[in-house]
Formats: sequence, structure tokens, C-alpha cells
Amino acid sequence: MSIAEAGEFGLIGRIVPRLGIGETTEIGPGDDAAVVSTPDGRVVASTDVLVEGRHFRRDWCSAEDVGHRAAAANLADIAAMGAVPTALLLALCVPTGLDIAWAEGLADGLAAEAGLVGATVVGGDTSASPTLTIAVTALGDLRGVAPVRRDGARPGDILALAGRIGHAAAGLTVLSRGFRTPKLLVEAYRRPAVPYAAGPEAARLGATSMIDVSDGLLQDAGHIATASSVAIDVHRDAFDLPDQMRDAAKALGVDPYQWLLAGGDDHPLAATFPPGAALPPHWRPIGTVRSGDGVTVDGKPWTGGSGWDHFR
Amino acid sequence: MSIAEAGEFGLIGRIVPRLGIGETTEIGPGDDAAVVSTPDGRVVASTDVLVEGRHFRRDWCSAEDVGHRAAAANLADIAAMGAVPTALLLALCVPTGLDIAWAEGLADGLAAEAGLVGATVVGGDTSASPTLTIAVTALGDLRGVAPVRRDGARPGDILALAGRIGHAAAGLTVLSRGFRTPKLLVEAYRRPAVPYAAGPEAARLGATSMIDVSDGLLQDAGHIATASSVAIDVHRDAFDLPDQMRDAAKALGVDPYQWLLAGGDDHPLAATFPPGAALPPHWRPIGTVRSGDGVTVDGKPWTGGSGWDHFR
Repeated sequence: MSIAEAGEFGLIGRIVPRLGIGETTEIGPGDDAAVVSTPDGRVVASTDVLVEGRHFRRDWCSAEDVGHRAAAANLADIAAMGAVPTALLLALCVPTGLDIAWAEGLADGLAAEAGLVGATVVGGDTSASPTLTIAVTALGDLRGVAPVRRDGARPGDILALAGRIGHAAAGLTVLSRGFRTPKLLVEAYRRPAVPYAAGPEAARLGATSMIDVSDGLLQDAGHIATASSVAIDVHRDAFDLPDQMRDAAKALGVDPYQWLLAGGDDHPLAATFPPGAALPPHWRPIGTVRSGDGVTVDGKPWTGGSGWDHFR
Repeated sequence: MSIAEAGEFGLIGRIVPRLGIGETTEIGPGDDAAVVSTPDGRVVASTDVLVEGRHFRRDWCSAEDVGHRAAAANLADIAAMGAVPTALLLALCVPTGLDIAWAEGLADGLAAEAGLVGATVVGGDTSASPTLTIAVTALGDLRGVAPVRRDGARPGDILALAGRIGHAAAGLTVLSRGFRTPKLLVEAYRRPAVPYAAGPEAARLGATSMIDVSDGLLQDAGHIATASSVAIDVHRDAFDLPDQMRDAAKALGVDPYQWLLAGGDDHPLAATFPPGAALPPHWRPIGTVRSGDGVTVDGKPWTGGSGWDHFR
């Protein structure tokens, strides 16, 4: 059945039962607004939007995949402040001819990804539009920790990374060249594996700054460098190059470090820690903070592209 | 300058300085997420999306008008729960050829409307898109009152309305027929005058249910009737018909009660109160709650259209 046939309230009636009710949800979907408890006394909030043809293609990702990706992009922003996500809100703009099953799949993906951190979709809005567009807002709770901003890195700090990097960018290149394998890379693009718990953990470990890597490590490290008025040097040897990535890069004629250093969509967390901080192994040191400005790789400017501009 | 020429960070750099910083804003735009204080211990959150060609036309509304309308649609949802708005987040999808001045005007309109209630824009996201789309999320604080839902109306309650009604719908009809006057109606469509303070006030006055009238009074009263398992009768005589509305209706061959009873976009608040509640004059009684189901006008079904479906 198309969404035009179902109508606005038919669509909402099909989506809402798939969303569940979270522990912090006092009022969920169905009223003018949701009410979510904020035990910390502060709420962390972030919005990200995905536009068909720009952030996803329906022939490359299932509806569930797009739901996972839309939720992950937002939940990672909450984690990158040191907070625990609690709720999502969804603004869904759909072509009226779209099958309602696609919207149901999207809701399932959103709910499943949010469920990984105990969050739920608490509200939203829908409209017809020529362009399939998914805007998600995530809310989170700091649970008593101070939010970790971008502006606290100091010379001498260690830059560390938690989570997979370069995989999604490699998967995107693979898909854009018409291939469907290696599965590791394509699946990484379709379903990010975000280290959500590493965000609050970094806050407790004394991180001086943190960011979610959504547009490429060098670009996002650059945001920390600019906000903190420091220079950051990234160490190329710190990155593992999985066999499948190395092989795909060779077959496609791509420098795999372009994926690792400038690729987005995996949403690992990058944070700076004071020298000597005792980091668990999943926080891998990948660079150092110095005085100065800008981001270098092994002391030199990176000559590949540095990341994603959503208007170019 | 077009947005493509400015680039993503150029656009953000032009918008952010226009937004101001609110009293409840601990971290505003520029980090992974915003942090907003929630003194009540709960946050109220709602999302609404406007799509060009469906919710607005650039030849009928200035960029500032669209900003006012986008903010008002969301802030009214927060007020309709009995809460005070604190913050907005913006997801902005724009054709790359759009002049950056339009985005600046939009930001000015959003900030000005939010400023009416002491709220500010604390974060957001931007993307290129073939379809100009504005998704706004509003946050609010209950300041200790219980949220007013849709499901508490009881037989014997009075239905009351705060704020302008029918004006925006009349203005939309005027514009869609190619006219630019009467100014009262056209300006009402361009800039809603939402009675934000009436929301928390209704909560304190003991409102048993409340809704923001965004899709037409009969449809939105129907949401209260359904959620509360009651019937609602609306009294036609309770509505003032301003001269300009009467004249425009006559000139255009429209039943003006269609604007009053089924028109959207003014965002007045409709609430039910226990019989005998002492209401200030700006809460005008417009109907009664009975046992049964459905919404009637003077005891009879309304034969005009009842409201807006965003997919038809």
C-alpha cells in the first residue's frame, strides 16, 4: 500500500506501534509533544538529517539500514558529549507513492538502533515531499558528568579513537563502483557499529575534548584543533589496515588511508586525554596534541581530500 | 552568494551569530550536541517539518515569515502540553542555488519567534536537497506543572479556545486566489500570533485536556474526543466573524466557518476545563464535552471538510 493510500494518520498508526516505550519516556508518541525525564537536570540534544541521493540510496541500503544509519548519526553525537541517549524524534518527509512498508522498515531500524542504548522514538512529524528526507533529533542525559566539548584539548594530550574507522567509506566506494562485496565493508556502510558506551566512559576517564567522526577524521580532528587552539598530529602507523580493506583499495585503485583519514559514516569517537591517562584497549592512541594549529599526518599536511562538505 | 558558493561551514558561520544564547542554554551551536538545562527534571520535546510547496511558498512568504511559522508550529506544541519553550533545533535542507540571504532570513525569523518566549536556537544540521525543507524540534520545561494531555476531557467539561482562529486559513485562500489583501488575513497566515502563555496558564487553571489547533479545530477537537472517549459539540455562535473575514469570504465565495472550524496554521490552543472553572477572558468557551464520541457543530455533523491530511 502506498503512503498516499494510507494517509497521514494511517502512516502514523502503522509506525507508532513499532517504536516501544523507554524507561525515561513519560509521554510518548500521540500527544502534541513527548515528555522525557532528565534526571541530570540538563538535556543533551542534537539533530541530523539524511536526504535521499545525498546521504543514502534505496538501492544500496534497505529501509532498516537507513533507520540504523539515521539513528546512529544522532546517537553518536549524544555519546560524543559524554551523555547516554534517551530518546529520538523523527521528521519524515516521503514521496506519496512510497510503499508504506518502507516507512515501517525505517521505523524498525530506528527503534532497533536506539534500543542498543535503551532509547526509543518518542515523537515526530510526517509530510509528503518530492524528496525522501529523514531528520532525527536525539536527546540524552549526562548522568552527572560534565559535558565533554571540543575546546579542551591541550598540548601534550593524546588523541585516541574508539570504534571502527574507514570501513563505511570503503563500503561506499565499493557500492558506488557497482560492487556488493567485500561484505565487511558494505555492511559497515549500511549499519554503523558506534561505540556508544565509550562516550560516557571517556568523560569519566578525564577526556579533555571529544567529537564523533562523521565527516572524516582529519576534518573532525580539525574541529577540535580549531576550537582548542592547538595542533593535532595523527600517526598513520596507529591504524590497522584490515586485509579486506587493503585488497579492495588495490582492486579499486584507491589509497586506503584516504578512507581511514578522510572517510565518514562509521561514527567512531575521537577524544583527547591528558598524557599518562590509563585508557582501556578500545581507546587506541592515534595521535598527539601540540601547540600551534591545524592537523598533520606524521608531521606533514595531508594532500588527499580531508572530508565531506554537504554542499559540494 | 549562493549556498553552494558559501559551503556548509560558510552557511553555518552565517547563521549561528544570528541565533543568540538563551538563559537555559549551557552549550549552544558549534559542538556535537547542545546542552540545555531542565530545571523541572523532565523535558518536553516536539518536531514539526515544513516542506516548500506543501507548507509554504517563497512567493507568498518571506524567509523571515517562514522562520516565524516554523518556530510557531513547534513552540505551540510545547505550550499545548502546559510547558514553557526553552530551545529549538533546526534541520535545514536547501537547494544549493538558494541565496544565502534566504537562510539568514529564516534564521532571523526563527530566532525572533523563539525570542517571544525566551527560547533560542541551540543547534542543528544542514544539507543540500532538491526540496527546501525545514524540520524544527522544540524543547520545553514544565516548571513543576503536570503535562496536560489529550486524554483527560470528561463529560460536562467546557471546551475553550485561546488565540486567533480561521485567520491564517483565510489568508491562505486569499493568497492562493492571487490576492494580497486583506492584510489582516494575509499577515495572519505569514506570521501566526500564538498565545504561548495560555498553555502553562491552562495547566495551572486545571485544564483536563489541551491541544494546539494546527490542522483545523474540528479535526484537532476530534483528537481530544478520541483520546478521551468523549463527544465534543462546538458552538458556532461562539465565534466572532471579523468584518474583513466576512467580506473576503463573500468575495471569494467561501463559507467563512470553513476557515474557522477546519482551517489550520493559526495555532490557537484548545483546552477542556471542568464546569465552573474561572477562566480569564482570553479563554473563550466554544463548546461542551458530552458522553459519546465524535465532534459535532451545534449538535450536527459538519458537512464541510474537517481538516488537513499531509498526504492528500
